[in-house]
Order: sequence, then structure tokens, then C-alpha cells
Amino acid sequence: MRKTVLYIAESLDGFIAAPNGDVSWLTGEYPDGLEEGSYPAFIRTVDTVLMGYTTYHQIVTELSPDKWAYEGMQTYVFTHKDLLDKKEITFTEETPEVLLERLKGQEGKDIWICGGADIVNQMVQRDLIDDYRITVIPVILGSGIRLFDGENPKIKLRLISAKCYNGMTDLVYGRR
Amino acid sequence: MRKTVLYIAESLDGFIAAPNGDVSWLTGEYPDGLEEGSYPAFIRTVDTVLMGYTTYHQIVTELSPDKWAYEGMQTYVFTHKDLLDKKEITFTEETPEVLLERLKGQEGKDIWICGGADIVNQMVQRDLIDDYRITVIPVILGSGIRLFDGENPKIKLRLISAKCYNGMTDLVYGRR
Repeated sequence: MRKTVLYIAESLDGFIAAPNGDVSWLTGEYPDGLEEGSYPAFIRTVDTVLMGYTTYHQIVTELSPDKWAYEGMQTYVFTHKDLLDKKEITFTEETPEVLLERLKGQEGKDIWICGGADIVNQMVQRDLIDDYRITVIPVILGSGIRLFDGENPKIKLRLISAKCYNGMTDLVYGRR
Repeated sequence: MRKTVLYIAESLDGFIAAPNGDVSWLTGEYPDGLEEGSYPAFIRTVDTVLMGYTTYHQIVTELSPDKWAYEGMQTYVFTHKDLLDKKEITFTEETPEVLLERLKGQEGKDIWICGGADIVNQMVQRDLIDDYRITVIPVILGSGIRLFDGENPKIKLRLISAKCYNGMTDLVYGRR
């Protein structure tokens, strides 16, 4: 069965976003490092992307305003706003639980939980994530938005792999 | 010059202690795993241990009540309590900054920052830590005491090594 995969980068102190929206810290030790990270290989394993509205809004207004960042995949955006679906983008009021049950009943590649923290923690709370792929950026960010908000159940993990490139470490876990 | 080294274990979600004091999660995937972790090699690189009073109290009352856990090393315990020093244990009201400046002016092996979170964050805030050696335990703990409290300056790190054993990952960083 297709898996739900959290693939996200965090600072060593557990933040996925700086308070001021700064994304310059999301690099390895050498900003121009030529080593290919895990993204190209990962992206070939998924065909569906799930995200919250805040993440969606940041992508289309700041990170990649000129071109939809996840072309060729089906994206679902959780929101209570009444928005018109676009090509490859569905706005949904379903809960992550209901949407995931439906998607996992369908054929397909894996499902990428892309962020942000609110959606991730809703899924951790309900133990809906099969694999955790976390890229640890070599920086103490000091403050910002935390990946894990600290009101979750205990979940035992199994380390599948750990790979380093340009000072970043990809930690990949399944559940025990 | 001798370095100050934070050597500590945290859950994947960034906790160093469970709310109820439970330490059973501080293992790899196989509780009886025979692989030697990084502790034996690390302990040979240090001769001085720094900790807060809460950590000290937990060691002598719960974790290792029958025998002082860090025999053969000089331990400094930060506290405002008026306590009598013991063999190899000094209780001090000095700030981490003042004590570290004095210790780093002396000959010796490296200095281990052992915990807890309050002392660690005082040191991160003042950028007093040379190396960060963090063992990531394969578990989402869900709640507890965080390693990094989130009111620190930004500190760029350099990944020195990443090693795995029994599902645990030792991430070792210096400063960039």
C-alpha cells in the first residue's frame, strides 16, 4: 500500500521556519554546494502532496510565485476557505484522517506530507505518518516555528537510513 | 585549548526528559542491543563534567544512587544552595561563563556539558559550547522537557560526523 511520508527540513534545534520567514538558513554548510541532496530521488517516489493553507500561500506568493512548485503531482490543500480548485490542486475541508483513508485506498505512489507544523502535528497525533524523512540543517536557528509541538503520543521509530551531504543529515525512520 | 562539549541524548522531537521522569525510552531499537554506543570513546576525551542541580539530584537519587556516576572526573554542579563539596564534586554559584573561562584557562581534557536543559540553554545563549554531540533516539516522545528552549541566537554549525548504532544516531557538530 502507498505510504504517507513526512519529508521536511528542520534546524538542529527543531524549527522548520524562522520567525521572520527567512529561508536562507535552509542550506548546507556551503550554500553553493554541488552535492545533490535527497530531493530528486525522493520526489520520484511520490505523486501526491498534502499541505496546509499557510504553506500553500507561502509557496505561491514567496517561494515559487511564477511556477507551481509541484507540477505533475496531485496536491491537496487543507483549508476552510471556499476556494476554486485549480489544475492539479484541490482545496479540501476534509480532515487529514478522512482524506488519507481515501487516498490510501487508491492506487498510486507515496503521499508526501509537506507541512506546515499544524498539519504535521495533527497527523502525528493520530499516528497517520508511515515514514519520517527529516533533513537536519547544520544550524541552531534559535527561535521560530517548531516541527513537533509537544502534545503528541509516544511513537517508537525504526531508523531506516542516515545520509549526509554538505553538512545536512537525512534521517529516515519507519515505525517500529 | 580544551573544548566545551554538549553530549546528550534527545528524542526525534527534541525532548531530553519525559514529563514523568521515565527513562525507558533512552535506548535504541533493541533494548538489549550489544553494539557499543559512543559513550565509552567519548568519556575518554573528557575529565570535567558540568551540570545543573536538578540533573545532579536525579543522578544521585534515581539514576545511580549507589555509586557516583562520574568517578575519576571533576564535576561542577551549578546551584544557589549552600552545599558542602564532596570528593570530585564542587557546588558552585558561579555563572557558566565565569566557570568556563577559568576551566578553559587550565590544562586538561575536554569539558562535558551534561545537562539539564536550563544550563544547556544558558550556554547556547552565550555561545559557550564548542562541540554539539547529540544522540537522536528513535522515538517521538510526544511531550517532556525540550533540549533547546527556543530563545537562542542563531549559530551556524559544521557537521563533523554522523554515526548510527541500534537505531540511534550520533550527530557531532562544531561551529562554522
